[in-house]
Amino acid sequence: MKLISENKAFGGRQQRFEHHSTVLDCPMRFSVFLPPRAEDNAQGFPALYWLSGLTCTDENFSHKAGAQRVAAELGIALVIADTSPRGDGVADDGDYDLGQGAGFYLNATQPPWKSHYRMYDYIVDELPKLVEAELPLTGRRAISGHSMGGHGALVIGLRNPGRYTSVSAFSPICNPISCPWGERAFSAYLGADRQSWEAYDATVLLSRATERQPILISQGEDDEFLEQQLKPNALATAAEAAGYPLQMERHPGYDHSYFFIATFIEQHLRFHAGYLLRP
Amino acid sequence: MKLISENKAFGGRQQRFEHHSTVLDCPMRFSVFLPPRAEDNAQGFPALYWLSGLTCTDENFSHKAGAQRVAAELGIALVIADTSPRGDGVADDGDYDLGQGAGFYLNATQPPWKSHYRMYDYIVDELPKLVEAELPLTGRRAISGHSMGGHGALVIGLRNPGRYTSVSAFSPICNPISCPWGERAFSAYLGADRQSWEAYDATVLLSRATERQPILISQGEDDEFLEQQLKPNALATAAEAAGYPLQMERHPGYDHSYFFIATFIEQHLRFHAGYLLRP
Repeated sequence: MKLISENKAFGGRQQRFEHHSTVLDCPMRFSVFLPPRAEDNAQGFPALYWLSGLTCTDENFSHKAGAQRVAAELGIALVIADTSPRGDGVADDGDYDLGQGAGFYLNATQPPWKSHYRMYDYIVDELPKLVEAELPLTGRRAISGHSMGGHGALVIGLRNPGRYTSVSAFSPICNPISCPWGERAFSAYLGADRQSWEAYDATVLLSRATERQPILISQGEDDEFLEQQLKPNALATAAEAAGYPLQMERHPGYDHSYFFIATFIEQHLRFHAGYLLRP
Repeated sequence: MKLISENKAFGGRQQRFEHHSTVLDCPMRFSVFLPPRAEDNAQGFPALYWLSGLTCTDENFSHKAGAQRVAAELGIALVIADTSPRGDGVADDGDYDLGQGAGFYLNATQPPWKSHYRMYDYIVDELPKLVEAELPLTGRRAISGHSMGGHGALVIGLRNPGRYTSVSAFSPICNPISCPWGERAFSAYLGADRQSWEAYDATVLLSRATERQPILISQGEDDEFLEQQLKPNALATAAEAAGYPLQMERHPGYDHSYFFIATFIEQHLRFHAGYLLRP
């Protein structure tokens, strides 16, 4: 992997890398924040993996969330992924909610998507393997994300118990198999068999989960996508039926923007720190 | 003035407005952050005016600096201006350092610039008059900015003692009459008479100042524009010669980016709070 930019921030280092992804079969970029490192820190840092929403790259969270301040204080690295494979040779769609910028963190099975769109494997396996080999990371991981990335964080966390100490999401797409964004993307990427969609639906996965993980969800009550796309009530209802101890917090007046993330990212980082930094 | 967007952030309100500027003779946009307001706060908030750098609009600082968190805590409003007049009828230049996005916070005297480029009057008079009439502001003001906006904050502060409780700047263009950015812009906007440039040069103004104001400057030592464009040593030398108590802080490893601003904006806000919130 090749360092393409580095900025000092809060005593640590905000870095951007490019590498060739074998899983996605294209060059990919991602960002990392490394906290200031004490000389006696030989083992490195635990990491919060961040998954972004529709239309985003790794730069939105890096620039707008203000997470580095708290990550520096806590000694938690941030690994910030892109939202899809990219490039001229990668299938795309004219709209913002399918194709490049809209990978939905799944492994596509349908043409023309299946040759590159394998974001699930990229986030679960390839990216952590790469950064944990190349950067001072302990291998202890938490995962979070926003909107489509909140969906990704919940799905990946629920499907891989024990791989992450804790899972959180801002304004996640909680039940993609029954909302317009999810139905459009899953139809394209996974095909007409709706049963195959359930492997990427947080509400279905949580209702069938046999293990319990710490999960925090923050949702703005004035979110413009709340009712039609995000459907937190479906997830809350499934959690209640399953007796799954979900921490879902609803915030009056907040919308879907990065101003909402910036306001509550400190709470999420401290939530993850409670698990990531446990001896 | 017309509200064009509003987002809740840190319990307060991040707002964007459009209005017709009489001084600039064009429609202008600016952003405001209003802290959460206690019911017994009848008089409103003091305000920090923020001036941005080359190529920026009012949105860069709003999205990237992370200032709202501390402003909300301290009870300080943020008034974030655009960097030039804008629009199809406004003179422009193909380069990033002249014309739209590069107003340099001065009143141009030369064609084709003089009909719109009056950012000095806009920032000193028109904008505060407007927002203090329309928003819950006390009329107590501080001023800060970055790069070209740091130049603007220093020049406007130094030329108007008593109008601002305190002045600060990140990576300011300290001596524009003798750097490439300043020479190009001042030649175009102010003409060939270099003596007329001195009214917009912080180093000249500070060396002639008869009153003392609290001034804080933060400068990254790895700033890519340090030696050729920013020239903090010229200002420091002038301050020392004049016995002007300038607080200039140099930070190893930091560059010219918003990551530098984000790291030290809390210090600047607390510096201004010491004066803005004084009874």
